[in-house]
Amino acid sequence: MEPSGLTLINGEPASDLPAQDRGCMYGDGVFRTVRVVDGQPQWWRFQLAKLRRDADRLGIPSPGDEAWEDDLRKLVGAGGLAVLKLVLTRGSGQRGYLPPERVQTHRVAMLAPFPEQIERVAAGGAVLRICALRLGEQPRLAGIKHLNRLENVLARMEWDAPDIHEGLLLDAAGRVVGGVSSNLFIFVGGELLTPRLDRCGVAGMARERVMGIAGRLGLTVRETDIRLDDVLDAREVMLTNSLIRIWPVGRLEDRVWTAWPIGHALRGLLDD
Amino acid sequence: MEPSGLTLINGEPASDLPAQDRGCMYGDGVFRTVRVVDGQPQWWRFQLAKLRRDADRLGIPSPGDEAWEDDLRKLVGAGGLAVLKLVLTRGSGQRGYLPPERVQTHRVAMLAPFPEQIERVAAGGAVLRICALRLGEQPRLAGIKHLNRLENVLARMEWDAPDIHEGLLLDAAGRVVGGVSSNLFIFVGGELLTPRLDRCGVAGMARERVMGIAGRLGLTVRETDIRLDDVLDAREVMLTNSLIRIWPVGRLEDRVWTAWPIGHALRGLLDD
Repeated sequence: MEPSGLTLINGEPASDLPAQDRGCMYGDGVFRTVRVVDGQPQWWRFQLAKLRRDADRLGIPSPGDEAWEDDLRKLVGAGGLAVLKLVLTRGSGQRGYLPPERVQTHRVAMLAPFPEQIERVAAGGAVLRICALRLGEQPRLAGIKHLNRLENVLARMEWDAPDIHEGLLLDAAGRVVGGVSSNLFIFVGGELLTPRLDRCGVAGMARERVMGIAGRLGLTVRETDIRLDDVLDAREVMLTNSLIRIWPVGRLEDRVWTAWPIGHALRGLLDD
Repeated sequence: MEPSGLTLINGEPASDLPAQDRGCMYGDGVFRTVRVVDGQPQWWRFQLAKLRRDADRLGIPSPGDEAWEDDLRKLVGAGGLAVLKLVLTRGSGQRGYLPPERVQTHRVAMLAPFPEQIERVAAGGAVLRICALRLGEQPRLAGIKHLNRLENVLARMEWDAPDIHEGLLLDAAGRVVGGVSSNLFIFVGGELLTPRLDRCGVAGMARERVMGIAGRLGLTVRETDIRLDDVLDAREVMLTNSLIRIWPVGRLEDRVWTAWPIGHALRGLLDD
């Protein structure tokens, strides 16, 4: 449990949620992870917009952006790096899956230290393993950063070695979906390819930003089905999320990559 | 939020969980729902055994049964009907999907009033609708009563009419899996059939008990693939869970059933 001063619930310092919160009981909520640099949340308006879109898909009413703005002001100081996690749950309910007639959501904002290793891995290339767990398909939940994350938990539990930086997730049909906590891009045939996320997977904010800025490098981005062989054959492989922005992949099984001109160029653009 | 006197967390009266509990953040936990009659929890040792098996499958360490026994004694009075919900989460964690090295689980026991309509529906037959949501397949989670229940939430949100008692869930391939909050049996060709739950669905305690006692009526039970037509053609259709035990189905779409000799006989046996 972190000090309550670093967590706000509905804008008030607090560290606990009611056990009957539907987030706790059913994973009935959505979240975002935001990188904060010198008091500035990266991609803030995009993050809030995606949080709202995800909540909409689950029928969870969203607070106004000014509520999150208030949380940000209360939690975030002027200097350094931090991680701001935003969580929106459908609030407390009576017993059973049906939401109450009048939903009163819980808005959670948590500040945490920024992970240390991110820039080091970005410079040297990430080591990727292939997870045994295969993602199930659920179009109704695909792409949403929701709180039903047991697949990610089980996949992440497959390894403990600190020199492995991320696990690659495939679906039951053998298509590559992304990393356990990241999205995937491959550079092949002069274009960027990234897995479709309409059957499973989480559509992260860094993925959206890469798709938004790739054109500045003259690159097209295409969402498509990607097989493991496509990844192994790619000129470059990149992982993205809001904290790492881009990690170029240095190794996957026996395949090694040592130069990442596209990855580094995109990473520079993302942080501009 | 219910009065804290009716909720115990790790054996102490409390109504809140840390927001950083992995149950709240990832749905990383398991639960059971127990019917309590005159202070006696129905199928208690079976419920605790299934809770432990489910936790084992997720790699969550289980408390000893005596811890749950203590909770039961503290919460449950001598008379009447009640619902006891048991929840076990993987406890609080640092940021990220990897569980902490030393997991300290949270054990939640909540007492709630018993739903009023159950016996009435049992006598008159349940009205069942077909849900539009199709369950995704995830063998690693199939059968477990875990806290990732967004599919159930979305399915339950499809209807609001109080005269519809349950929704029927199919998987993406059109196979019947069960109800939103219940399991399904059909009586056809002289035997009881129930959907396989190795791809999706929750294996409820009442389902296990029906399978355990059906032999006393000379019935065999078989887990198999069941199509919607099989349900519509069945002599009897039954829903099961720990609270309703058995609801005979009276209507599904245009199909009406008015006599439930098998359902009523099984229901009597279950409560013996």
